[in-house]
Amino acid sequence: MPLRGLLLDLEGVLYEGGRTIAGAAKAVRALRGDGLILRFLTNTTTRSRRAIVAHLVDIGIDAVAGQVFSPAVAARTYLAAHGMGRLFLACPDALREGFADFEIVDEDPQAVILGDLYRGFDWDLLNTVFQKLAAGARLVALHKNRYTRREAEGLSLDLGPFVAALEYAAEQEAVIVGKPSPIFFEMALRDMDLRAVETVMVGDDIDADIGGARDVGIRTVQVRTGKFRARDEARTDIRPDHRIGTIRDLPVLAAGF
Amino acid sequence: MPLRGLLLDLEGVLYEGGRTIAGAAKAVRALRGDGLILRFLTNTTTRSRRAIVAHLVDIGIDAVAGQVFSPAVAARTYLAAHGMGRLFLACPDALREGFADFEIVDEDPQAVILGDLYRGFDWDLLNTVFQKLAAGARLVALHKNRYTRREAEGLSLDLGPFVAALEYAAEQEAVIVGKPSPIFFEMALRDMDLRAVETVMVGDDIDADIGGARDVGIRTVQVRTGKFRARDEARTDIRPDHRIGTIRDLPVLAAGF
Repeated sequence: MPLRGLLLDLEGVLYEGGRTIAGAAKAVRALRGDGLILRFLTNTTTRSRRAIVAHLVDIGIDAVAGQVFSPAVAARTYLAAHGMGRLFLACPDALREGFADFEIVDEDPQAVILGDLYRGFDWDLLNTVFQKLAAGARLVALHKNRYTRREAEGLSLDLGPFVAALEYAAEQEAVIVGKPSPIFFEMALRDMDLRAVETVMVGDDIDADIGGARDVGIRTVQVRTGKFRARDEARTDIRPDHRIGTIRDLPVLAAGF
Repeated sequence: MPLRGLLLDLEGVLYEGGRTIAGAAKAVRALRGDGLILRFLTNTTTRSRRAIVAHLVDIGIDAVAGQVFSPAVAARTYLAAHGMGRLFLACPDALREGFADFEIVDEDPQAVILGDLYRGFDWDLLNTVFQKLAAGARLVALHKNRYTRREAEGLSLDLGPFVAALEYAAEQEAVIVGKPSPIFFEMALRDMDLRAVETVMVGDDIDADIGGARDVGIRTVQVRTGKFRARDEARTDIRPDHRIGTIRDLPVLAAGF
């Protein structure tokens, strides 16, 4: 099956912290030249597509909003596919623009979109969401990460614990749309209108990128940058189809697909 | 094995809402006269032992604090049995007096006691508890009820969702000390210094009272008051050893044990 689509993780593949991976922009240009459909994948839930595009353009990579695929975009694709038009948004303001095509309501939503509200998660907000779930709304969470590091508090609660709290209260399993959920990759395929076998995922994270994509049948390439660790190569439960040094090596590899 | 101990649920067995069950005080006096060791069991996590005793005395039932067994008392018994002396309390003020024999600390606790803080559950409190769990403290929760009804909000979050959130964040299973946890009944036995086979549990709730006590091998009597429902009699998965109309019928039944 010829390669038609390419899913590129951002952090750890195209850049690392503030630094661009050498040759990243050139590699992306070469892959584009091969006529591949591209999506830039990120698990960020705090920045809008526009902000991500601005960052990419900043480091010399041409991109348009429609090519950035994030949990918020996965959520939209999922909601549209399941005919859920009335939403209650419980997510950072930066993500609200992404749901402009939906009807945003305070009462009787079909789904609640849950993003990381950080200190905004207080009893009243959680209780408000719980009551909407108890009344029949579906809980759609942008991810379910347990904890994160923040400058102010160090190790601290991420979105996941609040997803778990609401799932337990409402006796309902949330739809998790961020990596490594299969839904994330399935919705990316739907967004590109491609099948898994026509597509390759390139990532640094053995679990979130490689494991997640493999689970839906997408071919995988792990780069040895970012979150790559030498011990990833010893793991036999999750193994990418290929490993390359950096994104710079991708055009040569992709030519052989 | 002769009967030596009696576990009596309160709400639904001795009283219902504000009303005392007819003959309750007389029945308790008769059972006391038989020389049984008594414990009054309640799942309340908002009232202190003293407040519960005051209520019992009010309705004509002599009781002393040491005979009231609640999740907070179960927690104390559990902590003492497991050599955990340094505690961080995240529970209503009314319960603090119950932990007077422990060292209450802000830093480096061996266990965190979690009660329902209602609106007190905000991000900062939850994050503080999470950090203590991540540093090695055990999470001891008074119960794990999903939701409750409150005058202000109607159907609303109970303690359970916050237990679930912290368990998920810290990748740690909480010690649940309230009914129907087996720990609740095991600690009541330890408190009475009796074995399960020497003891009878009398309750109205087929799951929390009857199921919980049976799980640790305690004989059970269900009263047809309080939360008793006719459909309880059709259940074959949880079945009490005996059913009686009300607590008033207990002395006669107990004489036959």
